[in-house]
Amino acid sequence: AAIFDVFGTVVDWRSGIADAFTPLLKAKGIDADPIALADAWRAEYQPSMERIRNGGRGYVGLDDLHLENLDRILAAHGLEAEFSDLDRQELNSAWEALPPWSDVLPGLKALAKTHLLAPCSNGSIAMMARLARNIGLPWHAVLGAEIARDYKPKAEVYLASANALRLAPEQVLMVAAHNSDLAAAASQGLATAFVPRLNEYGPNTGETDPTGPWTLTATDFEDLARQLA
Amino acid sequence: AAIFDVFGTVVDWRSGIADAFTPLLKAKGIDADPIALADAWRAEYQPSMERIRNGGRGYVGLDDLHLENLDRILAAHGLEAEFSDLDRQELNSAWEALPPWSDVLPGLKALAKTHLLAPCSNGSIAMMARLARNIGLPWHAVLGAEIARDYKPKAEVYLASANALRLAPEQVLMVAAHNSDLAAAASQGLATAFVPRLNEYGPNTGETDPTGPWTLTATDFEDLARQLA
Repeated sequence: AAIFDVFGTVVDWRSGIADAFTPLLKAKGIDADPIALADAWRAEYQPSMERIRNGGRGYVGLDDLHLENLDRILAAHGLEAEFSDLDRQELNSAWEALPPWSDVLPGLKALAKTHLLAPCSNGSIAMMARLARNIGLPWHAVLGAEIARDYKPKAEVYLASANALRLAPEQVLMVAAHNSDLAAAASQGLATAFVPRLNEYGPNTGETDPTGPWTLTATDFEDLARQLA
Repeated sequence: AAIFDVFGTVVDWRSGIADAFTPLLKAKGIDADPIALADAWRAEYQPSMERIRNGGRGYVGLDDLHLENLDRILAAHGLEAEFSDLDRQELNSAWEALPPWSDVLPGLKALAKTHLLAPCSNGSIAMMARLARNIGLPWHAVLGAEIARDYKPKAEVYLASANALRLAPEQVLMVAAHNSDLAAAASQGLATAFVPRLNEYGPNTGETDPTGPWTLTATDFEDLARQLA
């Protein structure tokens, strides 16, 4: 089986979220940079999960964390009064329709011939299911944070994902553009594949090289499919 | 969202399991009816889950129950010595490659345009994921018994499935060929669709008519897609 980090590795969250802000900012006549708002929203992602990882809060789905984080960044930008609850729900649902990198759909379709495929994301089952429907990701199941009720890089998320497929960790390949995700997966015995996404935070901002002894490195998902064929 | 019973409603388990027995019986020179063995295996299904439903046993995946049940029926047929562990694993994996009824793939592909689709089966995530890959079912997630850690028709399985999609029960349509499954779903507030599968246990053995006030009745999945378009 091959399991995948999603935000950054499968989809371009930054462009997708900025593109969701753009028409709302325009309609409201707000002069703000949608990319900066996307980055600000994403910057709240790790801190919001950290409270759950360290036991300071029970498991709460990423849908809810995103909405809390959005409230926080809108307030920080002085935009609290400008966005209704409906606007916020609309922005939050943009996480369910993010654009895939161009190699993702052909790569996953080729990989599906030889591997079970599932997201191993911090996104909830609901987010991952809607994202799959909206952009056509051919997953066979949804694994990751919600089945473990904890957040990556906690060990349980990788182990619960392998276990749900009734596979040993070494039979499962974790695919990610983030070395820290692969380091956590490898520490639990999973095989690992690094796929660089150089433009995740804008041109040439992504991690360019594997920083550990990962099982594979691929230039993109089509290359990964060729290597695993 | 539309969620589906699988064994009997989506796939023809009886033909699939009999077809898995046939070459093994032939290779071993055993004169036994593969259909009778399939029926005997399936007859152990409800009793094996009942112990878990009533709290006499913790949650155990259907993969394991099937293997235990296979051991039991092979022994009951005097075939204990004839089937190796490998034979039994091979037979057990036939549940992951059962043939779909002919309307299933076109019907689900049409339904995927308008609905989130997921199995709400007593099969495990691993079984459902492999079945999806082997026969091409376009699910967006895998729901059902394993996320609830109990078995249908227990209420929690339907409620956990709706909850995982972040939908209210009435926003979720349970599709099944079995009125008892729909009655349990309806009692928890889900919408319900009856699709008859007349040949589930052989020609003209299936439930022909809805026995309750279900939301919809459809002749097959293509008809269901037309009604929900």
